[in-house]
Amino acid sequence: DPNLKIFSLNSNPELAKEIADFVGVELGKCSVRRFSDGEIQINIEESIRGCDVYVIQSTSSPVNDNLMETLIMVDALKRASARTINVVLPYYGYARQDRKARAREPITAKLVANLLETSGATRVISLDLHAPQIQGFFDILIDHLMGVPILADYFSKKDFCDDIVVVSPDHGGVTRARKMAERLKAPIAIIDKRRPKPNVAEVMNIVGNIEGKVAILIDDIIDTAGTITLAANALVENGAKEVYACCTHPVLSGPAIERIENSNIKELVVTNSIALDGEKKIEKLVQLSVAPLIGEAIIRVHENQSVSTLFD
Amino acid sequence: DPNLKIFSLNSNPELAKEIADFVGVELGKCSVRRFSDGEIQINIEESIRGCDVYVIQSTSSPVNDNLMETLIMVDALKRASARTINVVLPYYGYARQDRKARAREPITAKLVANLLETSGATRVISLDLHAPQIQGFFDILIDHLMGVPILADYFSKKDFCDDIVVVSPDHGGVTRARKMAERLKAPIAIIDKRRPKPNVAEVMNIVGNIEGKVAILIDDIIDTAGTITLAANALVENGAKEVYACCTHPVLSGPAIERIENSNIKELVVTNSIALDGEKKIEKLVQLSVAPLIGEAIIRVHENQSVSTLFD
Ligand SMILES: Nc1ncnc2c1ncn2[C@@H]1O[C@H](COP(=O)(O)O)[C@@H](O)[C@H]1O
Ligand SMILES: Nc1ncnc2c1ncn2[C@@H]1O[C@H](COP(=O)(O)O)[C@@H](O)[C@H]1O
Repeated sequence: DPNLKIFSLNSNPELAKEIADFVGVELGKCSVRRFSDGEIQINIEESIRGCDVYVIQSTSSPVNDNLMETLIMVDALKRASARTINVVLPYYGYARQDRKARAREPITAKLVANLLETSGATRVISLDLHAPQIQGFFDILIDHLMGVPILADYFSKKDFCDDIVVVSPDHGGVTRARKMAERLKAPIAIIDKRRPKPNVAEVMNIVGNIEGKVAILIDDIIDTAGTITLAANALVENGAKEVYACCTHPVLSGPAIERIENSNIKELVVTNSIALDGEKKIEKLVQLSVAPLIGEAIIRVHENQSVSTLFD
Repeated sequence: DPNLKIFSLNSNPELAKEIADFVGVELGKCSVRRFSDGEIQINIEESIRGCDVYVIQSTSSPVNDNLMETLIMVDALKRASARTINVVLPYYGYARQDRKARAREPITAKLVANLLETSGATRVISLDLHAPQIQGFFDILIDHLMGVPILADYFSKKDFCDDIVVVSPDHGGVTRARKMAERLKAPIAIIDKRRPKPNVAEVMNIVGNIEGKVAILIDDIIDTAGTITLAANALVENGAKEVYACCTHPVLSGPAIERIENSNIKELVVTNSIALDGEKKIEKLVQLSVAPLIGEAIIRVHENQSVSTLFD
């Protein structure tokens, strides 16, 4: 369909290329560069009048640059008479600032939703939002894809000889762990962090049976990797045979890579929702592609079919 | 007035401090930092309920970070029940993307106006917008201050022995040069760039009499300093005795400092609308403060008086 156009911005061009290949179109021609003073300069180099445009961009680090690229691109597409402007955010930055945890804090995840709408986006497609409530921050349509099937698929092909158990590193992640466990036909366990008294170190309690099993830790985001590596240690100390870890979004900032290298984690399985620099691609890291998932979602959105059935 | 609060973000804290001193208040307490992954984390550390808040931030380089700081701060202030949120932008980034010069370009200056409104700003105070039309991009109130009086003041105190002439480096800047000339009771001249034929170098024609005079070049923004240094050369070649240059906004990106150092410009006079790193503070650069101008504007806005009379 010549009316379906896919454009890539600068955060994740390889994923964008894979998605375009999956969908069977060429990436749209545009130049997204910087003026001498660092201001973003965008020029769309082909007509998109009347087209349904999909812009692929993860608002990962540098988050502010990547977000502004998105907003300016949407503005340019709007002024160039696109019919619909669908912003595909494999990773939605600022998703963890989704509520006022303390007085006088911003709710940046909501601000970002408003900014996308203001710029002229007509639809958003995202993956594993840190909180599914963020869908409600939008008045425009939003499709919410899930990475669990991709991660579960990978582990189900491993044919472990031992029993496996899917472990949530905290209470917030239990629903996600349950979805993974269902796909792997395995039980779940939960790491229950408690601080016995103020100013005393947290104790890691494990709820569920992990003894002698292969434990698969699952989270949505691994950022500094503090939580996941401490959880892995606790699992081994409490008798797990091996520990795997997985997440959709490999933010991997600060000490993350070093912590993972030095941890008990045998393999860290992530997706390419966030592009990784060479030095982050350590041996125990496996990166799975979300291009077929996102590509299929784009095809369905474009053909006005349901995206939710993607998860059956 | 305890209801008047001034907050500084990270782009220009020295100017913010000077403005607060001028107004006679302490800077509001807030922390504006980064999470490990680079996301902005803002916490306002005092109550601002029912207050009129002024946020001081230049959206100079790094423009996207500085703009997002502004938007997130405004979101936090709104949710903390500020009565009014006045965004003071001594330098308005993206002001040069104020129209569609070619097909399929964004109009980022308008996008920025929309983003500020969406975040919850109730008023904007800015200085020497690249095009005064940008005022019309806002549906909220905007006060537009002018740097010319500050620059003119500086030169009028110099008591030049020779005749002076105020020079606009291009046709777009003639109005500004005229304002300066009126204040200095001097004539104006205009540099008229023409390309005689395609692919032939531009010729610099000077319209007006500069022979034997002290020429004062004036522009709103000096970015890479190409225009201004070529203009200075043309003036000297055509018989000007000395060349001074001035502008409100010292963007000074890329080769700017080197070009100015190596140019015929005797002194470059700028304001502190943009904070300058140490290595940009070269000997021939003089930086004048806009704190009294902005401080006075804040006092007048707060007392519901006209700001435009500031220029009489
Ligand atoms: N980029 C970030 N990096 C680290 N922590 C964050 C970030 N954004 C938000 N937070 C904090 O993470 C917490 C939310 O995480 P969660 O409880 O897992 O939803 C809040 O206390 C936020 O202040
Ligand atoms: N940050 C920037 N640096 C250099 N040029 C820019 C920048 N932003 C916009 N422009 C270009 O500058 C021109 C507008 O400048 P002017 O003609 O002086 O208003 C347009 O052609 C823009 O494409």
